Amino acid sequence: MAERTDEQHAQKMKKKQAAHDRIVAGKTVEKGLLIVHTGKGKGKTTAALGMVVRAIGHGKKVGVVQFVKGAMETGEKAVFDRFPDQVEFMAMGDGFTWDTQNRAQDIASAGKAWDQVKRMIADPAYHLVLADELNIVLRYDYLPLDEVLAVLKARPEMKHVIVTGRNAPEALVEAADLVTEMTLVKHPFREQGVKAQPGIEF
Amino acid sequence: MAERTDEQHAQKMKKKQAAHDRIVAGKTVEKGLLIVHTGKGKGKTTAALGMVVRAIGHGKKVGVVQFVKGAMETGEKAVFDRFPDQVEFMAMGDGFTWDTQNRAQDIASAGKAWDQVKRMIADPAYHLVLADELNIVLRYDYLPLDEVLAVLKARPEMKHVIVTGRNAPEALVEAADLVTEMTLVKHPFREQGVKAQPGIEF
Repeated sequence: MAERTDEQHAQKMKKKQAAHDRIVAGKTVEKGLLIVHTGKGKGKTTAALGMVVRAIGHGKKVGVVQFVKGAMETGEKAVFDRFPDQVEFMAMGDGFTWDTQNRAQDIASAGKAWDQVKRMIADPAYHLVLADELNIVLRYDYLPLDEVLAVLKARPEMKHVIVTGRNAPEALVEAADLVTEMTLVKHPFREQGVKAQPGIEF
Repeated sequence: MAERTDEQHAQKMKKKQAAHDRIVAGKTVEKGLLIVHTGKGKGKTTAALGMVVRAIGHGKKVGVVQFVKGAMETGEKAVFDRFPDQVEFMAMGDGFTWDTQNRAQDIASAGKAWDQVKRMIADPAYHLVLADELNIVLRYDYLPLDEVLAVLKARPEMKHVIVTGRNAPEALVEAADLVTEMTLVKHPFREQGVKAQPGIEF
């Protein structure tokens, strides 16, 4: 690109801008999105947390339910607790499911967490609801997929819902408006023996 | 999995936990990571913002330099401005490059933003530095890739740096410790005419 003259550059950028403006002009629909972050890579939960940050910054109210985390204090909880009027943050997992080793207890925890998600989806006060690691719970059959899908599909028109976790069920991907797969290209845990570090992993 | 008895479930989870504990025990290295979020999907910047949130929550200091954003007020800026002692947030782009249509001005902006990143990397006060959309600037040859790589590779041992943007240069992927590619599975902009919405896109 270095060979292009400044004038050619300006022309090309003008064309790009015009193309971009045409695309934006064609996009007029506003609606609540069902968003899924899945895949084996990093960034599923953090990308959802970033969207929570943006919503807070625009003065919106957000509900966060963490299905797996709960046993450990996280950085996100410490920050969102500083916005008590805007974020209801519920870490409702009993830790990872291999920590409890008790299926009945895990199913009960999942059901309680899901009840909170349902409440937040139904409550018009919430602009955005994050069901963090819900896919994990679905993978273990701790919640009935049919009911979860029915609630997500029947959400109020302007309600954004984000569902995270690897192995998103196909029917959820089908129902979603925006699906991103986080793909692992390189991971220092596997390759370099690097341990989980605060501010990065939790 | 529903057919498994509770006892079998507990046994399987015990094995998973043991495997997990073995893996964790083998991970003893602590080091600053060079992290890259790339790909055409959503979530590159938001996943980085989520890591900023976690770092803040753990009491760390973070530097954020946005290479492309600047013209528009974002949700992330509004939130991070609430943590003036912990986040230095600099939105230094003049908008998208097709807005300026002026290569010389864009190169000057990129250089100024890069100077800030270099300062934050050198300053031991910063635990984490986010160079948001740096890949875009590199793609347009607005900064010398060799110099950027040299600075990133020579960063202090415990410094985490996140670089975002599509089309990450191969040499950057090569140098990084953790690389995630965000892959678009479904996007409502393209498929449903949904427009950019506050709290989701910015």
